[in-house]
Amino acid sequence: MANKQKRFILTENEIPTAWYNIVADMKNKPMLPLHPGTRKPVTVEDMAHIFTLEASKQELNQTDAWIEIPEAVREQYKNYRCTPLVRATELEKALDTPAHIYFKNESVSPVGSHKLNSALPQAYYAKKEGIESLTTETGAGQWGTALSYAGKAFGVDIKVYMVKVSFQQKPYRRSIMQTFGANVIASPSDTTKAGRAILAKDPDYTGSLGTAISEAIELALETPNCRYALGSVLSHVSLHQTIIGLEAEKQMEMAGEYPDIVIGCFGGGSNFSGIAFPFMRHSLLEGKQTRFIAAEPASCPKLTRGQFHMDFGDEAGYTPLLPMYTLGHNFKPAAIHAGGLRYHGAGVTVSQLLKDGLMEAVDIKQLDTFKAAQLFAQTEGIVPAPESSHAICAAINEALKCKEEGKQKTILFNLSGHGLIDMTAYDQYLSGTMTNFELTQEEIDANIAELKKIIN
Amino acid sequence: MANKQKRFILTENEIPTAWYNIVADMKNKPMLPLHPGTRKPVTVEDMAHIFTLEASKQELNQTDAWIEIPEAVREQYKNYRCTPLVRATELEKALDTPAHIYFKNESVSPVGSHKLNSALPQAYYAKKEGIESLTTETGAGQWGTALSYAGKAFGVDIKVYMVKVSFQQKPYRRSIMQTFGANVIASPSDTTKAGRAILAKDPDYTGSLGTAISEAIELALETPNCRYALGSVLSHVSLHQTIIGLEAEKQMEMAGEYPDIVIGCFGGGSNFSGIAFPFMRHSLLEGKQTRFIAAEPASCPKLTRGQFHMDFGDEAGYTPLLPMYTLGHNFKPAAIHAGGLRYHGAGVTVSQLLKDGLMEAVDIKQLDTFKAAQLFAQTEGIVPAPESSHAICAAINEALKCKEEGKQKTILFNLSGHGLIDMTAYDQYLSGTMTNFELTQEEIDANIAELKKIIN
Repeated sequence: MANKQKRFILTENEIPTAWYNIVADMKNKPMLPLHPGTRKPVTVEDMAHIFTLEASKQELNQTDAWIEIPEAVREQYKNYRCTPLVRATELEKALDTPAHIYFKNESVSPVGSHKLNSALPQAYYAKKEGIESLTTETGAGQWGTALSYAGKAFGVDIKVYMVKVSFQQKPYRRSIMQTFGANVIASPSDTTKAGRAILAKDPDYTGSLGTAISEAIELALETPNCRYALGSVLSHVSLHQTIIGLEAEKQMEMAGEYPDIVIGCFGGGSNFSGIAFPFMRHSLLEGKQTRFIAAEPASCPKLTRGQFHMDFGDEAGYTPLLPMYTLGHNFKPAAIHAGGLRYHGAGVTVSQLLKDGLMEAVDIKQLDTFKAAQLFAQTEGIVPAPESSHAICAAINEALKCKEEGKQKTILFNLSGHGLIDMTAYDQYLSGTMTNFELTQEEIDANIAELKKIIN
Repeated sequence: MANKQKRFILTENEIPTAWYNIVADMKNKPMLPLHPGTRKPVTVEDMAHIFTLEASKQELNQTDAWIEIPEAVREQYKNYRCTPLVRATELEKALDTPAHIYFKNESVSPVGSHKLNSALPQAYYAKKEGIESLTTETGAGQWGTALSYAGKAFGVDIKVYMVKVSFQQKPYRRSIMQTFGANVIASPSDTTKAGRAILAKDPDYTGSLGTAISEAIELALETPNCRYALGSVLSHVSLHQTIIGLEAEKQMEMAGEYPDIVIGCFGGGSNFSGIAFPFMRHSLLEGKQTRFIAAEPASCPKLTRGQFHMDFGDEAGYTPLLPMYTLGHNFKPAAIHAGGLRYHGAGVTVSQLLKDGLMEAVDIKQLDTFKAAQLFAQTEGIVPAPESSHAICAAINEALKCKEEGKQKTILFNLSGHGLIDMTAYDQYLSGTMTNFELTQEEIDANIAELKKIIN
């Protein structure tokens, strides 16, 4: 029997104290990443050259289902968690659907998105291991903002390579990072060999995420007591994000319901994993029948139209080779406004789960996401991030199916962030100048053929 | 004995069901506003030409201490309330103060500020009274955004006159209003006589808040079934904002403390009143010893350096004459970044309370507010609005006094909103190009002399 409340919030004592490592419960474990040089499975030691030791251990942990959240991280989580679980009653009314729609509102985090959930433990582990600084890259700026906040919280210096065109055109996120005390560097820069080489060729180059990653990793490798931190794709990031779903599980209990469908938007996979894995645990262990839907942009469809193949996590080929659904690491996604979803591949765990039929994926066109976003804003009052709008659109589509079929299903999606700093995108939508980006099968095939030439 | 939790949140059932009307409990009632033509006390009928009938009744209600919150408004409140009460433990540590600092976090509202608390009932009353559209003006955009949201929630058309220079230079807030479905008009416009007259003189005029108010009121007066809505200054707005303090009262109980000092930033007075009045009730009725501090900008010091005098609420002189602390309605405040505090006068209730010594006021310089804001961001993780930073700065000053005197006091302030859409101001601060604005006694005296010539 559904509880009629609008919002459900756990008390501080009810906030989970361990993250859920789904790999321990998977029958088919994901294959291990391979060392890019030797092509042998990477070891914790290999990974710990780049990442913190603890993150490296978590990345390769296939046995422990529960990883304790350090006390200091839990204290930081309390600054914004538990985040509300909200029944989207006004959206339900607008759709005239028998479905019950719930969303987990991660936009109330001080940086406006779920990214903080992994930035905090990564900064904490760095501090604990005597690492003095962390480097990272950022495009739109959500991850860089979260890591800047976390670095300040734990006393770790943060250096963020921000794609130069974003640095110039998205000053708001840059300023937020600087307000938190981070060093934000426009990439390409003269602080690394990679950056200098590119600038020598083209002094006016406005940068790319690939270049920014190269710079951040190079700096981490060449600076004493410095490591690199990543905000998605990797398994330890997904692990940290399970705090979302673990809270939601208890909150859905408060609401007196269990989701038939769980939805997250999909870039590298961390927010989707975060909301889905704790519920998927009941599917794996108890045979619960729940559908898990990853909503990706039609312009970057690695899950729906990509191939399962070994591939690099970055454009430059610095990372281990990862077994994943990919469009090829050289894939150049169109300039959609959901910058956080413009990534060529899916994390290894999600890739294995998709391969095994334990989850599904849908692709959503840009104009449809903004239509859904405006309806959501006008009903539930929150202007969603362009990324999160993919999950909203998928949830609306499912709710409309319920209406057609006269079925009362319970839908849960993750609102990964708000869009208050993405209003130029809304402007474009409202003025009618926004377009979809079509991607032909030929383009996808060509890119994957290219990948197979490099990695066979 | 203080509870050690970080955040305190009420359950939905504990959210207050009535607002607190402090005027009913005041020994010296505020004088009634005067009709600008007849100079006689205004009646509900006078006011209801401009405002909704219910808001007009509330404005002049001096007898009922509790006004029920309509069920439909309470339902809407549940979308974001109860807002968290947070113990600022990290800020306390950074200041090394024995003081306990708490803040009420109104920035988690979907529009990012407390303004929604009054926008919702005003839109609801309009709908209930058969009013089809509401007009208003907005400078920085916080109030316009809140009213746009509320209008969509209750099915009332919203027309917002936005000062043209803000319309052009602050596109984010404009887009948010448009996303909610509001009609946003750059003022001066050709939609009103007032606007056309100004444009005829100077087609390139970039507007002022005074002109925008004139346009909004003119449209409300000349359009059938249309009224005007104001977001601060008036007593019914303060009434609606008491939801902040009423929640905080219960939350402080959860925390096991009672504030020695309550602080709010001060523009027209609504967010200060909102947090202060429910606690002031105990001072009025039970003689509790609590200090109430309004923190205003040094560049717009009506409370600390203005005079108590009858004055208009707007530059054009359309509103009733209000007995208030004022710098004169022709006062032109400097272009500080806390746009929401650039107002010449204080609401009539607060003015009476200040006159009677029941509260105090401090003025804060712009550079000090941003220094406080950055410290707050780096400790508590939230980038505050420039307006709210005045309250933060006043709270820090009091906490440092506690340290000096070795006293453990409990300080509560209102974080009225976040600053994520105000990052250009932070940029200016971080780059060292921000300045204070000094105001000489001669300038203030001249302006008040001018006022006394107009209204004697």
